[in-house]
Amino acid sequence: MEINAQTQLCGLLGNPVDHSLSPAIHNAAFRQLGLNFIYLAFPVQDLEGAVRGIRALGHIRGLSVTIPHKVAILPLLDSVETTAKHIGSVNTIVKDRGMLVGSNTDASGAIQALQQGGVERSGQRVVILGSGGAARAIAFGLCVEGKISHLTLLGIDDKERTALAHDLRAKTSIPLGEASLTLESLQSALSHTQLLIHCTPIGMHPKVEESCVPKHLLHRDLTVMDIVYNPLNTRLLQDAQAAGCRTIQGIDMFLHQAVGQFELWTGESAPIEVMRNVLTSHFS
Amino acid sequence: MEINAQTQLCGLLGNPVDHSLSPAIHNAAFRQLGLNFIYLAFPVQDLEGAVRGIRALGHIRGLSVTIPHKVAILPLLDSVETTAKHIGSVNTIVKDRGMLVGSNTDASGAIQALQQGGVERSGQRVVILGSGGAARAIAFGLCVEGKISHLTLLGIDDKERTALAHDLRAKTSIPLGEASLTLESLQSALSHTQLLIHCTPIGMHPKVEESCVPKHLLHRDLTVMDIVYNPLNTRLLQDAQAAGCRTIQGIDMFLHQAVGQFELWTGESAPIEVMRNVLTSHFS
Repeated sequence: MEINAQTQLCGLLGNPVDHSLSPAIHNAAFRQLGLNFIYLAFPVQDLEGAVRGIRALGHIRGLSVTIPHKVAILPLLDSVETTAKHIGSVNTIVKDRGMLVGSNTDASGAIQALQQGGVERSGQRVVILGSGGAARAIAFGLCVEGKISHLTLLGIDDKERTALAHDLRAKTSIPLGEASLTLESLQSALSHTQLLIHCTPIGMHPKVEESCVPKHLLHRDLTVMDIVYNPLNTRLLQDAQAAGCRTIQGIDMFLHQAVGQFELWTGESAPIEVMRNVLTSHFS
Repeated sequence: MEINAQTQLCGLLGNPVDHSLSPAIHNAAFRQLGLNFIYLAFPVQDLEGAVRGIRALGHIRGLSVTIPHKVAILPLLDSVETTAKHIGSVNTIVKDRGMLVGSNTDASGAIQALQQGGVERSGQRVVILGSGGAARAIAFGLCVEGKISHLTLLGIDDKERTALAHDLRAKTSIPLGEASLTLESLQSALSHTQLLIHCTPIGMHPKVEESCVPKHLLHRDLTVMDIVYNPLNTRLLQDAQAAGCRTIQGIDMFLHQAVGQFELWTGESAPIEVMRNVLTSHFS
C-alpha cells in the first residue's frame, strides 16, 4: 500500500516513546491487511495541545496512550468507555466523526491473553502482585468480567493498594482481600490460589535475575502470568515452569492490548500471528 | 526504511487535500535517500488547533501549507522568513527546536524553475497574468531577486492587483506597471516583453481548451511559463510552442516548490528526478 493523500494516521502519545514497539507491530498489521493506515510515535509533553491537534488534524483515526498520559488524558476526551472510567486510565483513543472516545485495551487484552492461553477464570481464586496502572487495569478487567471467585491484591504501596481495593469494591462484586506484599502474605495467599498475575516491574531487563516470588511458594496447580515482557521468559516464569505451573508471558498481554487497539481503529480482525512475530523477533 | 518509533513526520495542511500529489512526491524522495521520514495529508478546518497540535506532537518536523490556510497561518508562527512576510503567505513550516518558522517556496520554486529551464532574468521585461496567491509569490520572487528590468501586472481583480502593485513598490525597487487584463493591455504589454508568466486558473482541467492569451500575441522572443500543471501542456503552452516560444510547464514550478520544502525539512539535496518522475507519471 503506497502512502497517499487519503492515508489514515494512528499513533502513540507518551514520553519517552523512542523505544516503543507499537509502530512496528501496527504497521506490520496494516500492511498485512492492505489497509491505508500508518502508525507513528509522538513524544508529547503538552497533552492538552496534542489533543487539540488530534481534533484539528483530519485523517487521524486513533491513538495509543502510554506513560505518563494514561490518567491525565481522561478529562480531555468526549467520552470514556465504562471499564476505562472505572480503571481511571485510557490506553486507546478512537476518533469517530470528530468525537474522541477513550477505552482501555490493557484490561481486555489481559483477559484475551488468558483466554487464548486456555486459562479458566470461572470460580478461580486470583492473586495480583502490585497495584499500579497495569494491576488496576487487569484487576478491573477480571472483576468486570465477573467469573473469578476471589481476588487478593498484594503490594508494597499501601495507599495505592487500598485505593484500588476500595474502587474495585465500589464498582464490582467480586470478593476481595488485600495486604502488604510480604513473604507471609504471599505464602498465605498462594497456597489456595489458581492464578497469579505479576504486575510489578521486578525482573525487567536489565535486572533479569530478580523475582518477588520465592520458588518454594510456586505449586503445580498455579497458572502464572507476568506482565514483564523483556525478557520474554522472566525469572518468575522460569521458576514457575520448573515448579510445573502453566505460564503466560507478558508479550501475550502486550500483543492483545495492541490487537484490541487495531480492531477498534480499523474495524478489521487483527492479523495476530503477524503481530506476534514482530514482537518475538524483536526479543530473540 | 521501516517506519519505527523515531520516524519524523511531515505533512500537508489544507482543505481539501484528498487529491494532493505531495505525499507521493515527498515519500518517494524520502525513500530514495533512505531518510526516516513520512509525509501525510491532513485536511484541516481549525487551523489554530492544528498548529497547537504541531507544536505539541514531537517528531513532527515540518508542514506544507495550502489553500485556504496560506495567509491565515502567518500570525500563528514564531517567525516568518522575509520574502514570505512580504508576500503575506507561507507554504512551508519548519519546526526547529520547538519553534515554527514559515517560508514560501512558491517564490523560490518559481525562480528555480526558470533557472533550471535556462531562462535569463537579468534585464528582462516580465508580464504576470493574475494577482492571486501564486502571482504574489512569483512577483515577489522576481522583484526580490532584483534582476528583471520591469514587471507588468495584468489582472481582472482591480483591488487585488493594485494592492499587489502597492506592496511590490513598497518592498522592492523594480519598475512596475499594472493594468486591467484586456485584449488591449495584453497586446501593448506583450509586444516588448521577454517573459510571460500565467498565474490564473484558466486552462486547468477540465477546461483544457481555454487560454487568456490570444495566439496572435505570442512571438518568438517570448518565454512563456504557465503555473497550471493539469494538463502538463496547457492550451497556452501549446500555442506558445507553435509560435516558437520557449515554454516552462507548471509542473516545474510545482516540482521546485516541493524540492525547496524537502531541503528545508531534511537538510539534504532533493532527488529531483525521482520527484519529477512521480509527477509526470501521474499526469501521463
